[in-house]
Amino acid sequence: MSNIGSKRLFSSATCLSNKYAKYVPNSGVYPKGYKVGALSSGVKKNNALDLSLIVSESSASAAAVFTTNKFKAAPVQVSSKVLKENSAGINSIVINSGCANAVTGVKGLKDANEIVDTVDGIVSPNSEKQSTLCMSTGVIGQNLQMDKIIPNLSKLYNEHLGNDHNAWLNCAKGIMTTDTFPKLVSKEINVNNTKYTIAGLSKGAGMICPNMATLLGFFVTDAPIESKALQSILKYAVDRSFNCISVDGDMSTNDTIAALANGAAGGKLITEATTDSYEAIRHEITSFAQTLSQLVVRDGEGATKFVTINVKDALSYDDAHKVAKTISNSPLVKTALYGKDANWGRILCAIGYSDVEVNTNKTNVSFVPTDGSKELELLVNGEPQNVDEERASEILELEDLEILVELGTGGGQAASFWTCDLTHEYVTINGDYRS
Amino acid sequence: MSNIGSKRLFSSATCLSNKYAKYVPNSGVYPKGYKVGALSSGVKKNNALDLSLIVSESSASAAAVFTTNKFKAAPVQVSSKVLKENSAGINSIVINSGCANAVTGVKGLKDANEIVDTVDGIVSPNSEKQSTLCMSTGVIGQNLQMDKIIPNLSKLYNEHLGNDHNAWLNCAKGIMTTDTFPKLVSKEINVNNTKYTIAGLSKGAGMICPNMATLLGFFVTDAPIESKALQSILKYAVDRSFNCISVDGDMSTNDTIAALANGAAGGKLITEATTDSYEAIRHEITSFAQTLSQLVVRDGEGATKFVTINVKDALSYDDAHKVAKTISNSPLVKTALYGKDANWGRILCAIGYSDVEVNTNKTNVSFVPTDGSKELELLVNGEPQNVDEERASEILELEDLEILVELGTGGGQAASFWTCDLTHEYVTINGDYRS
Repeated sequence: MSNIGSKRLFSSATCLSNKYAKYVPNSGVYPKGYKVGALSSGVKKNNALDLSLIVSESSASAAAVFTTNKFKAAPVQVSSKVLKENSAGINSIVINSGCANAVTGVKGLKDANEIVDTVDGIVSPNSEKQSTLCMSTGVIGQNLQMDKIIPNLSKLYNEHLGNDHNAWLNCAKGIMTTDTFPKLVSKEINVNNTKYTIAGLSKGAGMICPNMATLLGFFVTDAPIESKALQSILKYAVDRSFNCISVDGDMSTNDTIAALANGAAGGKLITEATTDSYEAIRHEITSFAQTLSQLVVRDGEGATKFVTINVKDALSYDDAHKVAKTISNSPLVKTALYGKDANWGRILCAIGYSDVEVNTNKTNVSFVPTDGSKELELLVNGEPQNVDEERASEILELEDLEILVELGTGGGQAASFWTCDLTHEYVTINGDYRS
Repeated sequence: MSNIGSKRLFSSATCLSNKYAKYVPNSGVYPKGYKVGALSSGVKKNNALDLSLIVSESSASAAAVFTTNKFKAAPVQVSSKVLKENSAGINSIVINSGCANAVTGVKGLKDANEIVDTVDGIVSPNSEKQSTLCMSTGVIGQNLQMDKIIPNLSKLYNEHLGNDHNAWLNCAKGIMTTDTFPKLVSKEINVNNTKYTIAGLSKGAGMICPNMATLLGFFVTDAPIESKALQSILKYAVDRSFNCISVDGDMSTNDTIAALANGAAGGKLITEATTDSYEAIRHEITSFAQTLSQLVVRDGEGATKFVTINVKDALSYDDAHKVAKTISNSPLVKTALYGKDANWGRILCAIGYSDVEVNTNKTNVSFVPTDGSKELELLVNGEPQNVDEERASEILELEDLEILVELGTGGGQAASFWTCDLTHEYVTINGDYRS
């Protein structure tokens, strides 16, 4: 068996393959009023960054969406409690990588609370309530190496934080596990003629050793958003981004997406009642979340293709989402994409068993080339087309591909999903023994 | 890319690998009052058998469970209609392999009806209603080669039918597509001191070219079972057998399990009201269906392992079934099994996202060796155990493996599922281009 799995495990971000280098920005625009950074605490090998901190200079509104897995890791339980009690007054997010602090019982909860309290003591000693969210990612079933983490927290705060591009990039590197590149996006957005900035980091999408607790994502903005509004915006955005990606369909014990909004850029407070600005910033954050989540798919274990599944003309958004998700998770569709096979039969099959209303005599399936050239119709009104195999091969040679499905219900509702192919390397990475 | 995929496609049953030979019986006991057989109509290459016929000498009760895929193949639509109108008077089942007659519109329905009417004309010219069930399996989106099928039906009936072992084995070979061995089981059963015989054939579990429409299974018995009772027995049995197996979780346009009971062995008619004999034969047929369905998993594309997932102590059967199914379909669990990795984290994760009630502090997970030696505990009361990796390796070297999960709810309900591993060969077979 090849060794790719263990090589990928806790890879250092310093040796990027050319393939992925284009997804790592050389510069960015970052929100006001934050300091971020990372250091190597010694949990990961080779001095890789493994402890990241995001600090807001003033208390921020916070929101989060957590895994629905029944086996919730300790940091998920603790952060959930902190957020419930203090969603309007969060000062920091601390993330360690290399150990997920999951399935660790009472000791795990104690450790997560100690990290929160330690960071609070350093960053916001006067806060009456816990005001730090903590996250962990890495191996399940092992306790945190507290002797390495706790003493390094004040060093991290005092010596490693900044607001420049390198500080943000380090912060993104510090949360990587099996990722092959750090995932960082930043953007200036305009909401009702006020300029705000938003930055995001994420990590995905692999589980090894014995199980990587997997998906983390963080949004940080200097817009002034009330915490209840931030929670509903985050839920909306995640439903249309991180809940619309598939590498292998597994959901971990630690999956968490969190957001901070500190209002450092000024402007009028955005609430659910300020409809225009609420919807405008929700739109921006959703689009931003899609960009960030798509990077996780690009870095999917063994992936060679990035595939957008667009489902249109469903009776409802939920129906469209369900069909798109079913296609995205089908091993047969994913292996066909790997094999560059214009296999509409497998796509149709997945539509058919996704258990939503379909007009089988009005269903269309086509490949939409991402180079802007004409789409290739595979099925029109439920009838197989004579597929030009040469043209299909041209389209399937592209790294990026779109599959367009129209369900013909007359309902007009649409959803998108992003997936990757299922490859020999995926099996090698995940079939590899843990040692 | 390797050529394994196309080699497997429509493989001839004549060259069995040693690995699978042990699953093909050399003899059997077969029900009274049936004649079965197959011939090569020329649809498949190399004179492989591709047209099978099962004839009951007297009209039989019939029942069937069909795919719930929205894109139902023409033979599924036609057989469903025949069964609705005449479930007490079925005389034949005809099955062609090599072409699924799926996504073939009006022409497909016409062809399926013509096959039914032709067989009726040969077998039961005096029947007032259609009395033949037809099934197809093979490529989706192509029309049947009616010029090869229709002229061969009377030849098949007149020259190729019998009730000996070879006739039954040929019948099983004639429905194969990507299967590497014919799946045939037979058994004598005892119901309330009356002896009956039951035989079954099935084919699985792969989709290629562009999409194999996949799973077929047939039970034939000489017991006297009223058709309504046969339908409820079949539904019960399939829920606990064919609905409890996973190769890749995809469901095709043609999946069908059908049963005939002609009463040729005599005895008192079994109905839902004859509680003792009804429950006794339901138990026998369920157990038989499990044996038959497990052969499909053994022949799963690229599979190297046969894994029983036993889930116990759930709040309900449905909950236990859902957990077992989620574990069985997890690509991460399946690749770990391939890698012989005692990866309880992935199993736990799958339990956690299967969305059923679990007592996380009372959950147990262990490997039960199939050689009868002591089980290996991985998780006890939600706590990871120090796993003896050498012992784990020993167990994981076995071809057959059982994973035991206890959910600790106090509900005491259980379910089993049968799955295989996800291997490089699976990706090769399904990623291979259709040519």
